[in-house]
Amino acid sequence: MRVGVLTGGGDCPGLNAVIRAVVRRGVRDHGFTFVGFRDGWRGPLEGVTMELGIDQCRGILPRGGTILGSSRTNPLAVDGGVERIKENLAAAGVDALVAIGGEDTLGVATSLAAAGVKVVGVPKTIDNDLSGTDFTFGFDTAVNIATDAIDRLHTTAESHHRVLVVEVMGRHAGWIALHAGLAGGASAVLIPEQPFDIDAVCAHVETRFKSEYAPIVVVSEGAVPVAGGDMTLSSGEKDAFGHVRLGGIGDRLASEIEHRTGKEARAVVLGHVQRGGTPTAFDRWLATRFGLQAADAVADGDFGTMMALRGTRIERVPLSEGTAELKLVSPAEYAEAEVFFG
Amino acid sequence: MRVGVLTGGGDCPGLNAVIRAVVRRGVRDHGFTFVGFRDGWRGPLEGVTMELGIDQCRGILPRGGTILGSSRTNPLAVDGGVERIKENLAAAGVDALVAIGGEDTLGVATSLAAAGVKVVGVPKTIDNDLSGTDFTFGFDTAVNIATDAIDRLHTTAESHHRVLVVEVMGRHAGWIALHAGLAGGASAVLIPEQPFDIDAVCAHVETRFKSEYAPIVVVSEGAVPVAGGDMTLSSGEKDAFGHVRLGGIGDRLASEIEHRTGKEARAVVLGHVQRGGTPTAFDRWLATRFGLQAADAVADGDFGTMMALRGTRIERVPLSEGTAELKLVSPAEYAEAEVFFG
Amino acid sequence: MRVGVLTGGGDCPGLNAVIRAVVRRGVRDHGFTFVGFRDGWRGPLEGVTMELGIDQCRGILPRGGTILGSSRTNPLAVDGGVERIKENLAAAGVDALVAIGGEDTLGVATSLAAAGVKVVGVPKTIDNDLSGTDFTFGFDTAVNIATDAIDRLHTTAESHHRVLVVEVMGRHAGWIALHAGLAGGASAVLIPEQPFDIDAVCAHVETRFKSEYAPIVVVSEGAVPVAGGDMTLSSGEKDAFGHVRLGGIGDRLASEIEHRTGKEARAVVLGHVQRGGTPTAFDRWLATRFGLQAADAVADGDFGTMMALRGTRIERVPLSEGTAELKLVSPAEYAEAEVFFG
Amino acid sequence: MRVGVLTGGGDCPGLNAVIRAVVRRGVRDHGFTFVGFRDGWRGPLEGVTMELGIDQCRGILPRGGTILGSSRTNPLAVDGGVERIKENLAAAGVDALVAIGGEDTLGVATSLAAAGVKVVGVPKTIDNDLSGTDFTFGFDTAVNIATDAIDRLHTTAESHHRVLVVEVMGRHAGWIALHAGLAGGASAVLIPEQPFDIDAVCAHVETRFKSEYAPIVVVSEGAVPVAGGDMTLSSGEKDAFGHVRLGGIGDRLASEIEHRTGKEARAVVLGHVQRGGTPTAFDRWLATRFGLQAADAVADGDFGTMMALRGTRIERVPLSEGTAELKLVSPAEYAEAEVFFG
Repeated sequence: MRVGVLTGGGDCPGLNAVIRAVVRRGVRDHGFTFVGFRDGWRGPLEGVTMELGIDQCRGILPRGGTILGSSRTNPLAVDGGVERIKENLAAAGVDALVAIGGEDTLGVATSLAAAGVKVVGVPKTIDNDLSGTDFTFGFDTAVNIATDAIDRLHTTAESHHRVLVVEVMGRHAGWIALHAGLAGGASAVLIPEQPFDIDAVCAHVETRFKSEYAPIVVVSEGAVPVAGGDMTLSSGEKDAFGHVRLGGIGDRLASEIEHRTGKEARAVVLGHVQRGGTPTAFDRWLATRFGLQAADAVADGDFGTMMALRGTRIERVPLSEGTAELKLVSPAEYAEAEVFFG
Repeated sequence: MRVGVLTGGGDCPGLNAVIRAVVRRGVRDHGFTFVGFRDGWRGPLEGVTMELGIDQCRGILPRGGTILGSSRTNPLAVDGGVERIKENLAAAGVDALVAIGGEDTLGVATSLAAAGVKVVGVPKTIDNDLSGTDFTFGFDTAVNIATDAIDRLHTTAESHHRVLVVEVMGRHAGWIALHAGLAGGASAVLIPEQPFDIDAVCAHVETRFKSEYAPIVVVSEGAVPVAGGDMTLSSGEKDAFGHVRLGGIGDRLASEIEHRTGKEARAVVLGHVQRGGTPTAFDRWLATRFGLQAADAVADGDFGTMMALRGTRIERVPLSEGTAELKLVSPAEYAEAEVFFG
Repeated sequence: MRVGVLTGGGDCPGLNAVIRAVVRRGVRDHGFTFVGFRDGWRGPLEGVTMELGIDQCRGILPRGGTILGSSRTNPLAVDGGVERIKENLAAAGVDALVAIGGEDTLGVATSLAAAGVKVVGVPKTIDNDLSGTDFTFGFDTAVNIATDAIDRLHTTAESHHRVLVVEVMGRHAGWIALHAGLAGGASAVLIPEQPFDIDAVCAHVETRFKSEYAPIVVVSEGAVPVAGGDMTLSSGEKDAFGHVRLGGIGDRLASEIEHRTGKEARAVVLGHVQRGGTPTAFDRWLATRFGLQAADAVADGDFGTMMALRGTRIERVPLSEGTAELKLVSPAEYAEAEVFFG
Repeated sequence: MRVGVLTGGGDCPGLNAVIRAVVRRGVRDHGFTFVGFRDGWRGPLEGVTMELGIDQCRGILPRGGTILGSSRTNPLAVDGGVERIKENLAAAGVDALVAIGGEDTLGVATSLAAAGVKVVGVPKTIDNDLSGTDFTFGFDTAVNIATDAIDRLHTTAESHHRVLVVEVMGRHAGWIALHAGLAGGASAVLIPEQPFDIDAVCAHVETRFKSEYAPIVVVSEGAVPVAGGDMTLSSGEKDAFGHVRLGGIGDRLASEIEHRTGKEARAVVLGHVQRGGTPTAFDRWLATRFGLQAADAVADGDFGTMMALRGTRIERVPLSEGTAELKLVSPAEYAEAEVFFG
């Protein structure tokens, strides 16, 4: 059996670990051969391939990025895209495909599966907002990086009586902010699921200073002020490529707090640092196990599925189910963390 | 309500995070007051207490160790121990107890609960070998430290054509070795659950050198050679205190490999480095949530229970159930990892 | 002899290590007693003190910030400031003062020394731009943090064909950018000493993409475009407190590159993360040795001096000399690094 | 001009950074071509080469080990070794050689220079014991790894009332122990230059426990007890290859302390972890600058020299001078650190 592998969407620590595990398991235990498709769906769409075997996977486990490259190419938006992919898979002698990616990448995989392509999915989102799996790889790395940053800011906040605003990733879901805020001991966490009241944030800042502890406010990039509030923060600016701009809310929030409270406020915008570089041990373990099980799913002919972590087991769930809805922070989970704020 | 808190057994990153969470939740949301018992069960046994409130918990989230101290004192081995504890709890005005510890500490808690003491348990074992919970805090930190060490050893192994043996914690269960070995890309992992054949290990070493990749062998401190083999490794030496000696197998294994294969072999014994210092974000998150839920269990009067992670939820299970049996690496889990060995 | 200690100016990893070393050396080997002045020159100006002895210094070696607090209070700008300081020193029974700080703090110390106060200085600037010493503590920590960030960005830059701009500290001098850029393998480094030509930067970006390696551009917060260029970047914005705003150039440069080249560009603004948290081993060693030698200088009656690293020795230089001029990156040093750019 | 490059002796973070800098500088600014010799002096002795150019050096800056491999092969111990090297250099069209290594490697280089080979040296010793240079690369990385370990051990030592012994590298010189001990806040440091009195060590341990602070003892692998003492510690065991065994003193010291004082004592033996993996920013900066200057020395025809750090400048010193004597910790430097012990 000849199996194609591709990685789509944004960078995420652990992608190489998945690729390596799929290949080693496939070659050693199932007798597969492999071909790599370059740059996400662009690879099968345009027939761009690279050699992929155990040798190409040596030494990649601890490395960030993806040896296959990635892109946001959407073949469903291209005339005859699905047909071209089927032709290119046939031309490359590919019997089955392992697609590693987020909502968009797996959405395409779902459509291809419906069109008869034999495909198995591996979920990937650094934001951890995919339903159907307890955790996705990359998330733990991002949370640790953000937590390290918060740890470092504590002493500055305290020594200098300043407000520090830390903007972390999370467009739609506040998981990174919530986990890093809890782990770093932030005094407030603002997430997309719960629009914030700037007056309440400023009141919190002033209370903290009264108790002599400078505040650290963690804010998801996708957090927004409550409608009707008097803070005209607009998140969601688009750049020249039509993507939502990373960053923005952190700087504006720091500025707003400074002007309203008269306390110095500074923003830290970690940006892409959160999604690059070597994965944590947890992410390597999860990514590796996703890869092993994806190879086994191919061997079992269990197509149209994606891998999911449930407790400590890897299970297979329908591709469609995994991406049906975003997994958001519930009010109860947010309330749990609020014990530590203020 | 007045609540006592104690930490027993070996050091484990995250203990302070549990204490802080219990106290903040208890004080802020349940109106509890707290008292700290020093050095595990020695505290209630001898009536040694310390002040414990929100102020004592400031800044401790990222710190290893435990502000309450710890010990391996076993009150069940002391004449009238249970009665003395009940008297000392009464004298301190304590209505309920939160006991944070491993098999031994929770075993005492189980007995006390049977004797009518209102107690809630929080499981703690760096080895992750407690049944009833998906993970325990401290384990993720240990695995990351061991993985970092393995990462560093790869280049030395390759540049110098040497065998490197990494001894990690795990007396009865190989979880740290298994996870760190997978995450670090070790070429072999030896765990207590699967006695190893020294001939097979040496054959593996020689195969690796033929393929020009120097081997890294991760070994749990409790790993043992197969019975009847011709390697007289004795693990389980006792020190002057009757505890099993940390270390030992790593050095002996390196020595044995060197003499049998003629290849230079060196051991790295991480020892207590794995269980000290700041916890990872995952461990802080897990420990914090255990603490929150333990305070809630006290408030609910749900005594005789311990906290457990199931998926992403914290659940309460009977104290007895949590410690009834060790959670060991199953043959299937070990086989999964073997894809990467050799 | 009774010695006062204060820390002034911005946060800098290693301040606590200096305080601890001064105190331990002074108490154990010179029989000094100590008093801490709070919040930089505000302490002696307003007579705000805290207890300071070996006990207060336990456990602070690895901690960022300063147990004494800091501020930018300038007593020379206050009517009768110098006299008030002399009165408060006398009132506290202080015979000599150890002042730990940067250009501003040591400038005040120089004036006080001229007015007869017995003062010894310890240089502190995270930017490493103080003449008279090879290195200042805190700098190595900042460079390592920035280098870690660059390491993480490499894979994202490569996997996603993006320009990544990393803004690091350095208002007047480009040392952090130069060292982190060299150590992280940046493809371009922009520093305050060498105004940059935005056309050349964009040409560099396009060349890199042709060779399939995405560019990482490290920029000092104080870097400026060449005069007369067509990029109207204004660095040096003031905030509500009259301080130059951290940040700004990174975001604007990314935006400008994106619009000119059509390549996606993203900024990472590390900000205060670079100056908080635990110091590196080098910074702890340097800070500790500065502290030891400062105590010895007091014991020797060698006032009006500051400590300086020359090679591996700590020497005493006149306070005035140390702060007479900024230490800037020379054209030769910048040229050395350029070998790696492009 | 065609230049050969080789790396000899033990692993050391920064070797790849030197190689990369030599090559980039040589190719871009001097028009050199390069050839890599494999495995130290074995390469020129046996004529084993590899391609070496800018492409081979991409991405290696942050990686430990050496892409050229290494060995302890000594051509001076081989009949006609020098002649064979000269023939193999000629056969490979090599005009000049850059040799990166420690005392042994540079000793061979010195002999070759005397025999007319055009050679430039780059000093390398993780132990930092080479005279003629303020620091060598790799040392800072080793010190940081050891310091991190000590940081982690503090809480365990305190929570559990245990003696922790940390064995670090350093056969002849105690630099790693001294710097890591100072930076980590160890309570005692034992180095090869100052034979230790086991009675004094145990007295120190008991004093520490009286003051409620558990001791952390850092010991160089080459530390020895004073002659005539009643502790029969033999350091310097040889392994099957005639090399001094790493390790040994740490375990024996812990055991001895435990038996004499009745306090539990545990050893941590970091071993090769200290010399593998990614270099710190300082080591990358130093290694890179050594490489740049070595290429310039070749271009200048300045053979028979080695690079040396003096303050912040790289200078060229005669090869013979650099290796004439070991740089040891002086009694004054050791005394400086003793302020913090006990």
